[in-house]
Amino acid sequence: MPDLTHWPAVDDADWKRLLASARRHQRAGQSWTDAAHGKSAGLLFFNPSLRTRCSMERAAHQLGAHATSLTPGEGTWNFAWEEGAVMDGAEAEHVRDALGVLSRYYDALGVRVFASLSDRRQDETDALMQTVARAASVPVINLESARYHPCQALGDATTLAAHFGKDALAGKRFVLSWAPHPKALPRAVPHSALLMAARLGLDVTVARPDGFALDDTVMTQARAYAEAHGTAVTEASTPDAAFDDADVIYAKSWAGGRVYDDPAREAQQRASCANWRVTAERMARTRPGAAFMHCLPVRRNVVADDAVLDGSASVHLQQAENRLYAQKAMLEHVWEI
Amino acid sequence: MPDLTHWPAVDDADWKRLLASARRHQRAGQSWTDAAHGKSAGLLFFNPSLRTRCSMERAAHQLGAHATSLTPGEGTWNFAWEEGAVMDGAEAEHVRDALGVLSRYYDALGVRVFASLSDRRQDETDALMQTVARAASVPVINLESARYHPCQALGDATTLAAHFGKDALAGKRFVLSWAPHPKALPRAVPHSALLMAARLGLDVTVARPDGFALDDTVMTQARAYAEAHGTAVTEASTPDAAFDDADVIYAKSWAGGRVYDDPAREAQQRASCANWRVTAERMARTRPGAAFMHCLPVRRNVVADDAVLDGSASVHLQQAENRLYAQKAMLEHVWEI
Amino acid sequence: MPDLTHWPAVDDADWKRLLASARRHQRAGQSWTDAAHGKSAGLLFFNPSLRTRCSMERAAHQLGAHATSLTPGEGTWNFAWEEGAVMDGAEAEHVRDALGVLSRYYDALGVRVFASLSDRRQDETDALMQTVARAASVPVINLESARYHPCQALGDATTLAAHFGKDALAGKRFVLSWAPHPKALPRAVPHSALLMAARLGLDVTVARPDGFALDDTVMTQARAYAEAHGTAVTEASTPDAAFDDADVIYAKSWAGGRVYDDPAREAQQRASCANWRVTAERMARTRPGAAFMHCLPVRRNVVADDAVLDGSASVHLQQAENRLYAQKAMLEHVWEI
Repeated sequence: MPDLTHWPAVDDADWKRLLASARRHQRAGQSWTDAAHGKSAGLLFFNPSLRTRCSMERAAHQLGAHATSLTPGEGTWNFAWEEGAVMDGAEAEHVRDALGVLSRYYDALGVRVFASLSDRRQDETDALMQTVARAASVPVINLESARYHPCQALGDATTLAAHFGKDALAGKRFVLSWAPHPKALPRAVPHSALLMAARLGLDVTVARPDGFALDDTVMTQARAYAEAHGTAVTEASTPDAAFDDADVIYAKSWAGGRVYDDPAREAQQRASCANWRVTAERMARTRPGAAFMHCLPVRRNVVADDAVLDGSASVHLQQAENRLYAQKAMLEHVWEI
Repeated sequence: MPDLTHWPAVDDADWKRLLASARRHQRAGQSWTDAAHGKSAGLLFFNPSLRTRCSMERAAHQLGAHATSLTPGEGTWNFAWEEGAVMDGAEAEHVRDALGVLSRYYDALGVRVFASLSDRRQDETDALMQTVARAASVPVINLESARYHPCQALGDATTLAAHFGKDALAGKRFVLSWAPHPKALPRAVPHSALLMAARLGLDVTVARPDGFALDDTVMTQARAYAEAHGTAVTEASTPDAAFDDADVIYAKSWAGGRVYDDPAREAQQRASCANWRVTAERMARTRPGAAFMHCLPVRRNVVADDAVLDGSASVHLQQAENRLYAQKAMLEHVWEI
Repeated sequence: MPDLTHWPAVDDADWKRLLASARRHQRAGQSWTDAAHGKSAGLLFFNPSLRTRCSMERAAHQLGAHATSLTPGEGTWNFAWEEGAVMDGAEAEHVRDALGVLSRYYDALGVRVFASLSDRRQDETDALMQTVARAASVPVINLESARYHPCQALGDATTLAAHFGKDALAGKRFVLSWAPHPKALPRAVPHSALLMAARLGLDVTVARPDGFALDDTVMTQARAYAEAHGTAVTEASTPDAAFDDADVIYAKSWAGGRVYDDPAREAQQRASCANWRVTAERMARTRPGAAFMHCLPVRRNVVADDAVLDGSASVHLQQAENRLYAQKAMLEHVWEI
């Protein structure tokens, strides 16, 4: 059964095929077929969504299929997650039964379930998404789990390929730049952006304050991808120098490692790094033709200034649009059409 | 106008036709037509739903129609229900106007409105569903009212016919087994399961603790169905013996009769019956090939043990799937296609 | 780009074409085409909706298109609205980015954003709807803004044309009659009803208590429409006399002018006018064949008595149904089909 729940599930051949397919959809623009007529996707959002819900519904629709978006706890039951739970509390249904049932109605399921930022082991093992995948008997597309956001990664790769040209990507300088934020945020997006850029053969720098390193296993996997391309993954701990000669600034906030054992300390560290905001001055250090990327939603004038987001370098709306094409490719992949 | 709002509305001829049609859809599996192209169903959920919403949307879709699910009070107005109400409170719209309006947009309405468990007369007369049916000018499908859940009943009958074979149903021992639960629950499902089993010609036992008898009028109607088949409806007040030689265990919790006049006493009675949980030991008393049924959502290890739900006798996921086929039959019935 | 965000955006030629198209759809009843196959409308509801959401989804569907309804803050992010906002508060996304993104997914956007009734300048300039329209790069249909409700106006014009015959409308006496209500309500509907009636060439009276005048600029525009037809817009400050010889009573509550500077005083004024309720006695003063109109939701026995709403003069359900036909015309207009 095709599996798009986590990064290692997508091998190189699938990744290349998915990217080529997303690019074809992008060139075709808002086009539609009846290839998936009669099929239906159930989209389960344990966390909020704007882009993902709309682009996924639209992707299904443009393939001739039907999609339903469900928000557990709003008009449906709340779910229990633990194996062997004695369900005498607030949860009326076990996720195992819920996913089993939905697998009877839908030809694919899309599931969003964010990192807890409180249970380190659960987040690091992507335990909730793994529980979902085990309970489902149809293909599951990860709409952002604790650890990965493959839809975003494929849309971003499509954006880069369109911006620079597929054959000009090799060796471009991609800077994943940590950004300030009033809330502790999960790492699914930075993990996925890092792995995506390394897999495309870009030269990657992760610029982030001390205490905000990404997960070791993800860094290790990214380095392996880079090595295969003869590029490298490096780290920087100040914002300015990393912008010099960058071809891509990918801004994103994420929580520091202390969020699990001392959240107050993490919040303090985060608040002390407000000067990591992306400004027009910093963008001026980048190469001509450089792109500014953000996955959205973006806190304007906190993560990046209006002047950056409304400037000519920003491709954030293209990224959002390319989610549609990426997800059409993903639905075709899991439905084998 | 075809009417699927309450049990007596479905005469024997319609019931047989609906069941045969649901079985045909079940054998065809996930199939679709354009027979209802251009039609639309409005689904109004005054209470939470997972299976019913998804299977009804999908049923409409597989017939070529469109469906919309609405949750009053979430993104819409709250409704007033009383005749002659002076609407100077929180409710912005009368259900009579709301249903009148929706009847102008949709070719059928599905409505879920649970028992109050506080207003006995309202629940016993299915007053809210009757108000809905009077206010609508298109067919209404009952998606669970205070008293009945015909969609569940038809799906369950389909499951039984598939499990045993239609011609082998007569005289099989069907045990509706009361189950523990942390909350007082309505009786629409046990009522509908009881009537369904009796109508199919099964030999029915209602096993429930003292104080948890089902409604007299429903018991009387079930006995009349049984009599026509030469079978019987009996009651048992201990859990174990009822399992002996059973062909079907249909587990379901429901509130005791004191819920209306002394809810604290009802909760106490309910809590004292935790030992009615369905265990593997109890299931071992049943006949070879017996089926364990539950309408879902199910509280695991409270209503029934994991070992039962994950065991080979359990057909709860088939029941959920068969909702889809039952509801396709019901939509075809009300749309006369 | 076709623009249906505010009243002045619809010139006389468009208005006549839209009305003729809505009438054609009304005569055809529940009909459908594939003219808009592959297109999709994104419907964004910052405030509750029943009629507008259902009729808009259905209008899109009957044209062969797809529609999605979104409720910001329920399953999506909350939006910031201010230019240059430093987004370190509760809002996760700027409306500028959200609308930019949605414009990439949908072929038209419908947006509902009610009057604040607390920021006079914002309401009078329809600032939020203007912000939406500037941020979008596809046509925007106003689903009720602070100032206008063009969908309601076109549906109401369709109702009047059907009730009296298009050529018999000139000079009919249209009374917009203020009504009591427990809450302060926006003026988008009365503004739109007034402009609609004047534009159709009806003789208009605005009957409302002292302190409840409509906005000057809207009154001025309505008088200009009337003058072009040789009719007039007059005002009355008592309820009874205005009903004499009326052909149409259009009942609607709206807030008094003091709502912005002294809301307690406005509430007091409003409460003192409970006797403006539309009764059967008052309706008896109107001409034979007169119509009672209300946009819904209506507070029964507060705004108008049951005897009026359930009487033969009331066309409130036709008004609701005609929203469907009006919005089909509007979607065809913005999609140029």
